Amino acid sequence: MAARRTDARQKMVLAARQRLRERGYHATALSDVLTLSEAPRGSVYFHFPGGKAQLAVEAAELHVREQVERIDRAAAASGSPAGLVRAYLGMARENLVASAYQQGCTLAPLVIESVGGSDELGDIGSRGFSAIIESLAAHFAALGLDDGAARRLAHTTVAGMEGALVTSRALRSTEPFDALLAALENQVTPLDD
Amino acid sequence: MAARRTDARQKMVLAARQRLRERGYHATALSDVLTLSEAPRGSVYFHFPGGKAQLAVEAAELHVREQVERIDRAAAASGSPAGLVRAYLGMARENLVASAYQQGCTLAPLVIESVGGSDELGDIGSRGFSAIIESLAAHFAALGLDDGAARRLAHTTVAGMEGALVTSRALRSTEPFDALLAALENQVTPLDD
Repeated sequence: MAARRTDARQKMVLAARQRLRERGYHATALSDVLTLSEAPRGSVYFHFPGGKAQLAVEAAELHVREQVERIDRAAAASGSPAGLVRAYLGMARENLVASAYQQGCTLAPLVIESVGGSDELGDIGSRGFSAIIESLAAHFAALGLDDGAARRLAHTTVAGMEGALVTSRALRSTEPFDALLAALENQVTPLDD
Repeated sequence: MAARRTDARQKMVLAARQRLRERGYHATALSDVLTLSEAPRGSVYFHFPGGKAQLAVEAAELHVREQVERIDRAAAASGSPAGLVRAYLGMARENLVASAYQQGCTLAPLVIESVGGSDELGDIGSRGFSAIIESLAAHFAALGLDDGAARRLAHTTVAGMEGALVTSRALRSTEPFDALLAALENQVTPLDD
């Protein structure tokens, strides 16, 4: 029973994340999250007493954990900062194309739609982006950049990826990702190739 | 009378744009746009028979026209692609700081919140970003880059700026803009300095 409850709960978090990526926060209806996760009516407030805000926070936290794990794996497989940039942007690009340009970032809508409400929800954009940027910066430094350059490259990579997710979706084209990757590879190549 | 009508109409478009930048599309209420623009109740559907969707399209179109005009002026004042990148990112950074990290892009929410509805509204993200990217690319080419490099730099600059608007707002810091500018200046410096 505990396992089934956990499973239903997890499905709701994943469904909330999918809709956040597709539609943002305000356009995501709890009823739609229930339908998508095949959860029984009324089970949202059983699992998530904080309702939609709590679901969004947990979806965002899941997204950040997953991003950091992917960055760790990509860093282990990359021999250079340029390789990590390539792998990180490649994952975002691949996910966008696989979703037919429907799924962007989970965190960005919470920032752009100025979702404050609870302190916890107002805070997740800052906590989430900090965790991703710090993870990238630590790996870039371990791969040979000095601390300042590592932090700047982490900021540039995350900002570029967030923006490319927006313009690529709008244009239904991977051109922004491809241009960004070429620019960042060019930027770091003298440092590591 | 015609002038006063035009003035009231324009105020509503400007108010809609401000709220789009601050809160996105779905969280923007028509009643709030009326209050902000000091327009009389009931005047929205007189001026905008298409309601909130029409207001959002006109706000986005105004934003794009203004961006393109600013790019034209910045290009005329810049002697190089790096100078134009610096001026363009500088304007976005300045506006964000002046708004106490409250105002992002007008177009991004329409993409991220998947605002389709009317064809016109579904289309504005694509038309808007295309116009801005093509304007920048034409100026970069006129300033000496070959066509492919000019287009790539335009895509990178716009994606970077869009993302920096998101992460800077989340972190309440200009660090993403500063890192991005350093990276792009470094990127184009060999080509024009």
